[in-house]
Amino acid sequence: MFDVNEYFDGKVKSLAFKSGDDKATMGVMAAGDYEFGTSSIEHMTLISGEMSVKLPNEDNWREIAINEMFIVEANVSFLVKTACDTAYLCIYK
Amino acid sequence: MFDVNEYFDGKVKSLAFKSGDDKATMGVMAAGDYEFGTSSIEHMTLISGEMSVKLPNEDNWREIAINEMFIVEANVSFLVKTACDTAYLCIYK
Repeated sequence: MFDVNEYFDGKVKSLAFKSGDDKATMGVMAAGDYEFGTSSIEHMTLISGEMSVKLPNEDNWREIAINEMFIVEANVSFLVKTACDTAYLCIYK
Repeated sequence: MFDVNEYFDGKVKSLAFKSGDDKATMGVMAAGDYEFGTSSIEHMTLISGEMSVKLPNEDNWREIAINEMFIVEANVSFLVKTACDTAYLCIYK
């Protein structure tokens, strides 16, 4: 029914589901620094915890607030830093 | 790192993590009708999809809005109905 995805030796785990007509995942990440690659546009929302992100073409890190959504273009990579367990929603557009 | 919990033959699946000092889960449920039991106070928030709930001591079903949080007392059971994939955050108090 719902696939479990696992990355970075289990430090990031997510559940795949459908959000309306869009593919989506709900995931959790342990404290750490990560680089993610995209294959489609991603609408990321911070649900719990903390998240700093460095998006392509941006020089500075951005602190993301709870329930704040940020958009990552397709076919790029972006950096994420978190100091605690952090939960997120990702909708693929 | 993050335990995966599975209920109702995989129709409900969740990831366990910490939200500050509290235990928390992020889960997804397939369309269906469910009865959940609580062993502690639960702060449930609808993240994606749809959710109707019938809480103990309430006669009517309630439609939960996206990002709306409702509280379920400890040691009770409550009913949930959803017509599509639905994602939720649960924080145990």
